[in-house]
Amino acid sequence: MKRIIFIAIITLTAYTGFAQNNDSIIIKRIIDETMINGMAYENLRILCKQVGARLSGSPQDKKAVALTTKMMKSIGIDTVYLQRCMVPHWVRGEKEIGQIIQGGKKYSLNLCALGNAEGTGPQGITAPVIEVSSMDQVNRAGTKNIKGKIVFFNFPMNPTYIRTFIAYGESGESRTRGPSLAAKYGAVGAIVRSLASNLDDFPHTGVTVYNDSFPKIPAVAISTKDAEYLSKQLKSEKKVQAYFRTTCKMLPDVPGYNVVGEIRGTQFSNEIITVGGHLDSWDLAEGAQDDGAGVVQSMEVLRSIKACGVQPKRTIRAVLFANEENGGRGADKYLEEAKAKKELHIFALESDAGGFSPKGFRLEMSAENQDKIMQWKDLFYPYGLFEIATGGSGADIEPLKEIGTALAGLNTDSQRYFDVHHAATDVFEVVSKRELHLGAGVMAALIYLVSEYGISPSLKEE
Amino acid sequence: MKRIIFIAIITLTAYTGFAQNNDSIIIKRIIDETMINGMAYENLRILCKQVGARLSGSPQDKKAVALTTKMMKSIGIDTVYLQRCMVPHWVRGEKEIGQIIQGGKKYSLNLCALGNAEGTGPQGITAPVIEVSSMDQVNRAGTKNIKGKIVFFNFPMNPTYIRTFIAYGESGESRTRGPSLAAKYGAVGAIVRSLASNLDDFPHTGVTVYNDSFPKIPAVAISTKDAEYLSKQLKSEKKVQAYFRTTCKMLPDVPGYNVVGEIRGTQFSNEIITVGGHLDSWDLAEGAQDDGAGVVQSMEVLRSIKACGVQPKRTIRAVLFANEENGGRGADKYLEEAKAKKELHIFALESDAGGFSPKGFRLEMSAENQDKIMQWKDLFYPYGLFEIATGGSGADIEPLKEIGTALAGLNTDSQRYFDVHHAATDVFEVVSKRELHLGAGVMAALIYLVSEYGISPSLKEE
Repeated sequence: MKRIIFIAIITLTAYTGFAQNNDSIIIKRIIDETMINGMAYENLRILCKQVGARLSGSPQDKKAVALTTKMMKSIGIDTVYLQRCMVPHWVRGEKEIGQIIQGGKKYSLNLCALGNAEGTGPQGITAPVIEVSSMDQVNRAGTKNIKGKIVFFNFPMNPTYIRTFIAYGESGESRTRGPSLAAKYGAVGAIVRSLASNLDDFPHTGVTVYNDSFPKIPAVAISTKDAEYLSKQLKSEKKVQAYFRTTCKMLPDVPGYNVVGEIRGTQFSNEIITVGGHLDSWDLAEGAQDDGAGVVQSMEVLRSIKACGVQPKRTIRAVLFANEENGGRGADKYLEEAKAKKELHIFALESDAGGFSPKGFRLEMSAENQDKIMQWKDLFYPYGLFEIATGGSGADIEPLKEIGTALAGLNTDSQRYFDVHHAATDVFEVVSKRELHLGAGVMAALIYLVSEYGISPSLKEE
Repeated sequence: MKRIIFIAIITLTAYTGFAQNNDSIIIKRIIDETMINGMAYENLRILCKQVGARLSGSPQDKKAVALTTKMMKSIGIDTVYLQRCMVPHWVRGEKEIGQIIQGGKKYSLNLCALGNAEGTGPQGITAPVIEVSSMDQVNRAGTKNIKGKIVFFNFPMNPTYIRTFIAYGESGESRTRGPSLAAKYGAVGAIVRSLASNLDDFPHTGVTVYNDSFPKIPAVAISTKDAEYLSKQLKSEKKVQAYFRTTCKMLPDVPGYNVVGEIRGTQFSNEIITVGGHLDSWDLAEGAQDDGAGVVQSMEVLRSIKACGVQPKRTIRAVLFANEENGGRGADKYLEEAKAKKELHIFALESDAGGFSPKGFRLEMSAENQDKIMQWKDLFYPYGLFEIATGGSGADIEPLKEIGTALAGLNTDSQRYFDVHHAATDVFEVVSKRELHLGAGVMAALIYLVSEYGISPSLKEE
């Protein structure tokens, strides 16, 4: 369970007290700079429209590396360089097709292969469908009821969870672990209800993780509307079969790159502060909220600090991580390099919850460090940040826990995130400039504070 | 100045303490009901797509009254009725046209007449342009520099204000009072930069208020991009003229209606609690965020309370106000009826800040009542509401201050609001179902608490 720390202010005095504080003035200058002159939104437009989808190993992935390297260099910072790593190279192949077949009638499905999945082969597969709404139900159904069938995982995201990531996590196992569990009992394929908070016609992709002990059966996501339809048909008397055809496959690894830009610290340049997002995206959309937003915000942190003439005491590094979506190899590489060079990574902040209005930070660090950050809480109220909680910081910085880095994730107002997440609808147009820039601004503020006052790395995991 | 009261929780104990509280259980039931079965989003779709724009006096205004009366009746509440009032009947006329003329070259403007403005006549007007960036500047320029000219009010919304309504209020006088001030010094027309937070090609309309002491000169809004262009051209050496043609006019008043639905209180039915939004919208768009959202949320408050089997002690009334945009006659009528019938209006809550994620409430009531509401603050944390502040509640309930009603407005995350406000882009598609329903849910929660525990009306204005 997550320990929730609420920011607290009792009196108006407490609220206005920091107005004379130098940090609040510098923070206001930095955030104002982003709200007035910020480049994040325009950079996101270019990334989405000139490159678009950029799955690891794709030609667009390379284009994205080249483009963001150029953007990073244009900031005029101390160093820009690449970290090379080998990344998975999964390809979707031909446009997927699929149908529900019932009483001789066919109903076309809006579907897409799950990421990292194997294809059906050119003939596709056709089989009776069994619906499940929990993993337990799969185990209970067993080989007797599942063998030779397609298992339909219908795990709607719980609409009553105000923190949508919790609903995503809860229903998410249907996609990540469902297909392999179905395979354990002899299923020939898996259909997964898209992990989406809304009802529409767009399938949402995302990784499935095969368990090597079982056959790698083909697996697709169908749109939430189609899931509702399929579930309804399965309740009727007539037998329901499904057909789908996918030609996706995993090819040998190819090179990928973390793009790194750095402002060297004036006093403690050996102490490294990382701010990052991931550069890769799924192949169906422009990856605007996931995670073009984090990419352009991380670059904006460097730009705004530089533009305000702030000379950070500690080294600030923006990292655009390779391959978050279907491998995490960029994150692994970053840790590997840090260890090889014996770098001192004191703090890392990730933005991978969409470029929505910031609500606070999730902290993954020692209680002592949490307390330190809580002392800065007043500085964030004027920007609408009221909630600082412990919790997962982000997939790309998490490996740094191994070397004791204090971690944080930007928390956003994620009510709209899972409408578009991993679907064709995650395009530049769904991003709000003000929301994106406000997020970048408060990230820069936190990075500034850590660069100014430091934070204690710890070798213990919290 | 607004007094800001921050919600405060110190310890985890305080946060979980209310879990055993019966109110928190009922509130969760009500909000869950809206998140799962809420009708607000579907009703908004119908209102936007079957009726669309619904300016006071228009045929669509009548259609909206009929449609929402039917929606209100479908909830199965105790009473649904209309309150008739006379409303202004302003018509836009033909599609406006306009150009910048410079060195014989013409540049077409994206523009629209301001609401309630007079037209130019069929020939349009052509005149040299003078740009101003403050009201003071108009006064300083005086008749000498303004007479015979078109005054261009270029008041960008301040992007550094995180509370966007403050930026709107600050720049807003350019539209509401600018044209008449220009007329005072002999201007023949006014061009106003759209009150918008983004740069695009859509003009944003909204009322201008003529001062009867000066001529009613024609006035238009141009898109923010065109405002940037015009400002740039005015800095060049070549003389700049503008031309525009509008055929808008004010016709005699016609009937309009407040739509009212009511659940009668079981114990104190004479104590009335109002929840409302405004049914009219500007004529350029579907009025989805402004204020279709408030309309469908107010109906949802009744529906969810009813669906949960809650029998409120006090009478709860949803009011869909007529004519907020260009007259406020529905609001006036509501007060008039309340006074005529000697009704006891203890509390009113308005939603007119868009159907975005709720952030808190603005309170306009006695300090004693504020303290009472602050005692309920813990109940709102789980839904992301951290900020309760004093401030303007809403234009439609404000007249009730006269009879001592305690007032509140729903505060939202308004970063995206002024991208679409009063423009053709304010359509159903920009509304998020989860955000809209979460807003309706917390409104119902506050209404439930007041219906349960009452609140003291006061004859003093705060």
